[in-house]
Amino acid sequence: MNETLQLIKERISTNHFDKTRKLSDDEIRELVEYAGQAPSSYNIQHWRFVAVASAEGKARLRALAYNQAKVEEAAVTFIVLGDLRGYDHMPEIAAAVVAAGQIDEKRAESWVTTSHKLYAGNEQFARDEAIRGASLAAMTLMIAAQAKGLSSGPMIGFDPVGVKQAFGIADRYLPVMLLTVGYPAPGNAGRKPRFGVDRILAFEQGSGFPS
Amino acid sequence: MNETLQLIKERISTNHFDKTRKLSDDEIRELVEYAGQAPSSYNIQHWRFVAVASAEGKARLRALAYNQAKVEEAAVTFIVLGDLRGYDHMPEIAAAVVAAGQIDEKRAESWVTTSHKLYAGNEQFARDEAIRGASLAAMTLMIAAQAKGLSSGPMIGFDPVGVKQAFGIADRYLPVMLLTVGYPAPGNAGRKPRFGVDRILAFEQGSGFPS
Repeated sequence: MNETLQLIKERISTNHFDKTRKLSDDEIRELVEYAGQAPSSYNIQHWRFVAVASAEGKARLRALAYNQAKVEEAAVTFIVLGDLRGYDHMPEIAAAVVAAGQIDEKRAESWVTTSHKLYAGNEQFARDEAIRGASLAAMTLMIAAQAKGLSSGPMIGFDPVGVKQAFGIADRYLPVMLLTVGYPAPGNAGRKPRFGVDRILAFEQGSGFPS
Repeated sequence: MNETLQLIKERISTNHFDKTRKLSDDEIRELVEYAGQAPSSYNIQHWRFVAVASAEGKARLRALAYNQAKVEEAAVTFIVLGDLRGYDHMPEIAAAVVAAGQIDEKRAESWVTTSHKLYAGNEQFARDEAIRGASLAAMTLMIAAQAKGLSSGPMIGFDPVGVKQAFGIADRYLPVMLLTVGYPAPGNAGRKPRFGVDRILAFEQGSGFPS
């Protein structure tokens, strides 16, 4: 089987990390660079990552995540954020796409106008999009980590308000998940059984799912 | 470079598909099976996929997606859904994890109780989670498609209410995105420039991002 498909099947959410193995700042940067290759509407790239890798930082983060040990035992725990006002950056983003020769000035102006109309003043839609974008990037990071022999684990059990305060995160950024990354230790559970494909897939009509 | 990392760098959101190349139902099932390997809280697997591959279905879906041709030109366009009441299935999910020998009966009971407490009566959190889960699965599907020589493109420009009505989707399922998959045609634009990694990554403190 293709290596990538194999990795997708092998990835599990890891609970036990090798506490003795660290990641360098450059290794962390590389993972986030892969995460940033995810797709986004208007290329807004709503995702942001705070890498918490210091002993002190991880201890502080663990206390805000129901004291789950993996936050501290992983080499790095990312606070994955979604930007609720990502469209603010559209003039810069559109200019970069113009500079790359992919759209013209007129199209760039239209991107700025239409993206602003889409998100500004529509708080629920902006929140949905921040979560969608951050999640697409986080999944890309998990698969890149797996390809590099690392393990990962997404977590939603944490205090988002406390995390924002403790790590100086501005209100425009929504904490979407914590994401632990490191080398696995022995003793991780196997992969949990998934629904059969016919339980999660319908052809042509969605009425086959439980209502 | 590792094949998986290469694929992550090469993936683009494709606008032009080869209209003459179809996917069999089994190929579609295989893609969704990979998508279902994504992680989820309590293994709830909030994602559902409606595969629209018939000419008639794709025409109907295109009309609900600002008439974007790629919806019809792709071999299949998935309506990616998130289950707002995924915790309803916890007794069955926990029983499968017990049957796999990974948790005991007592732990299973606790999963059912605590997941219900977490989501039920917390509509915003349930919605956030439906979007998070569906997005993690969709990104996994896109990378699996790339590994199989296919191209894909996520889309948020569509009428979610109209799509639910037209495809018989129950209210508990939130349309999170459309996702086109097929063989690429010539003429697709290159990959759009991404932010440099230091724009999306901060170490230890999130205060370096624009407030």
